[in-house]
Amino acid sequence: MGGGPAKDLLLCLLPYPEPKDVLDTIRRRFPYIEIDYRRVSLFPSADELKAAVTPEVWKGVTILYTVTSFPEKLDYAPKLQLVQLSSAGSNQIQNHPIYKDSDIVICTSSGIHGPQIAEWCIMTALVQSHKYNALHDMQKQHQWGQQKGDIANVRDMVGRRLGVLGYGSIGRQVGRVTKAMGMDVLAYTATPKDTAEKKKDQGFIVPGTGDPDGSLPIEWYSGLDKHSLHHFLKQDIDWLVVSVPLTEQTTRFLSTTEFKALSQDGKRPAFITNIARGKIIDQPALIEALKNNTLAGAALDVTDPEPLPEDSELWSLPNVTVTPHISGVGSSYMERAFQLFEVNLGKREKGEKLLNVVRRERGY
Amino acid sequence: MGGGPAKDLLLCLLPYPEPKDVLDTIRRRFPYIEIDYRRVSLFPSADELKAAVTPEVWKGVTILYTVTSFPEKLDYAPKLQLVQLSSAGSNQIQNHPIYKDSDIVICTSSGIHGPQIAEWCIMTALVQSHKYNALHDMQKQHQWGQQKGDIANVRDMVGRRLGVLGYGSIGRQVGRVTKAMGMDVLAYTATPKDTAEKKKDQGFIVPGTGDPDGSLPIEWYSGLDKHSLHHFLKQDIDWLVVSVPLTEQTTRFLSTTEFKALSQDGKRPAFITNIARGKIIDQPALIEALKNNTLAGAALDVTDPEPLPEDSELWSLPNVTVTPHISGVGSSYMERAFQLFEVNLGKREKGEKLLNVVRRERGY
Repeated sequence: MGGGPAKDLLLCLLPYPEPKDVLDTIRRRFPYIEIDYRRVSLFPSADELKAAVTPEVWKGVTILYTVTSFPEKLDYAPKLQLVQLSSAGSNQIQNHPIYKDSDIVICTSSGIHGPQIAEWCIMTALVQSHKYNALHDMQKQHQWGQQKGDIANVRDMVGRRLGVLGYGSIGRQVGRVTKAMGMDVLAYTATPKDTAEKKKDQGFIVPGTGDPDGSLPIEWYSGLDKHSLHHFLKQDIDWLVVSVPLTEQTTRFLSTTEFKALSQDGKRPAFITNIARGKIIDQPALIEALKNNTLAGAALDVTDPEPLPEDSELWSLPNVTVTPHISGVGSSYMERAFQLFEVNLGKREKGEKLLNVVRRERGY
Repeated sequence: MGGGPAKDLLLCLLPYPEPKDVLDTIRRRFPYIEIDYRRVSLFPSADELKAAVTPEVWKGVTILYTVTSFPEKLDYAPKLQLVQLSSAGSNQIQNHPIYKDSDIVICTSSGIHGPQIAEWCIMTALVQSHKYNALHDMQKQHQWGQQKGDIANVRDMVGRRLGVLGYGSIGRQVGRVTKAMGMDVLAYTATPKDTAEKKKDQGFIVPGTGDPDGSLPIEWYSGLDKHSLHHFLKQDIDWLVVSVPLTEQTTRFLSTTEFKALSQDGKRPAFITNIARGKIIDQPALIEALKNNTLAGAALDVTDPEPLPEDSELWSLPNVTVTPHISGVGSSYMERAFQLFEVNLGKREKGEKLLNVVRRERGY
């Protein structure tokens, strides 16, 4: 990037109303950036996109800020230097020529969802351990059912073990909160984090959250091979949170063998949470493991496929919570995404390394 | 207490099956204590109690470990020195001659419920802020309702302000977890905590939880008068957790005036959680404040009276969660209560001050 102040054209193609205050902040701080904000659908058709952005506009764009809207061809935007995605992942651009045939810098907004998605993880795990659905049913029936069913069969999280498969921004925040609840945190990462420097979170961190220094886990594990994965899963984990990116290597990363390793062949059924991508888990194997009590329960904000078909067994298994990929959707989202974007514009101005640059060789 | 080793008779009157392992641990550590364990109902009738404990047995008892079962008259148990309650509060003994007419040491089990009740507080607050009930309804209908209703209207807890009215063992653990979630914690106590020593938690702390040193709050407030209370409530609190003991002074401590102070006359509706006692809140005033949006919502594990009558409006107000005083009921309970009891027996042996001694002059 580099280059310092120069005339830039930032095109925002986002599915929200124009956030005038936020844009004004950016204009004041970066007076050399001209901002063109256009509201589009979350998944615009080619026709919608053509109507929204003329070839003339594309020609001048140096920075694109979007979720899913890209120039149809690479040469439509010859000056494009930076694509900032407001999503945590980058799957939506990986088949596009920008990703495949160019070196244009692509940054994600990984990190901004941490706090809210972590809250979803905590909530859904507690909903199951505290039998909330039964309590809610009693409330609807105006019933003070103190002795009813198994509502007294609650065990708190103190001393239990959380395994975080993918110790990134979301996993770190789940670790932070569960440690405060009295749990022990075990971290798993793709590459070894064997120095203090490597344990640090390299991405965007919402202030006051996460684990910036990687100081929370009592143990660290790593590797993308099955042997390493199984070694981690056998560490008496009570609750496994899946928060790895979807790559070729993590596709169907967890299946029957892994669920058995996690539960010591069914002797110690664990709870599993997936807020990453549905395809990381072999879903038929998951359903089987939930039905035969290899797993104690599951909380899934992502499924395979999405939308989850109406006739999927997952919907009605007891001990399963399914939500429609909404754990990160909320009112703080856009504000935080722009916060991160502003940090990156500042780094770009100074010629520093941007946050959350997608590394094409590893796929995220 | 004091006195060191001497022949003691510990009578346990509890509504659980005899925990042999736990009792064996106590026998080994305190060989001079004879243990007599008798299982009784949670609220035994006078007849049940007479049948369970003969006058001969009462005569020798030096230590009583119970929830609600006491000798009918003070002189039935002339050797009684210590009553250890396995409950967090002591209301159930306050009309008994042991409390009113003796100096027999009474200890509560305050502190052991902290982690589980804090989890209940976190869960019920998140259930409301993340619209869990709507998500659960969609799941029951096998509906991938990504755009449905206001499920996207979620705001996470980062930067929001938690007010803890009664910064004891439960309040401290709620503080610990919510701070990890990114919130700011404001503490309120009966007496000023203006030194590092006074900020410390003096009671039993489940290891790895709570706020032993009182280092988490960004601000401390105190007082039992209305002026002090109102000053605290006006500190832009988003979520108020009520965790004060029920005393004469805290009876109907919160009513219309307080709800208005908390919400800046309705301009900033706050969420309120009560896990203490129903009578601390003026319940008709609470219902009114919830109906006219002075309050954003409420999570209540305690009501006035209990059981909550079937025709109470509270049951069906939107934004209200009511559960039947079960937030502290769970499988870790008895184990932790005996843990605390063992600590106290150790302190008694050494002549040290016991944990959680009820101070009759302040009423808890």
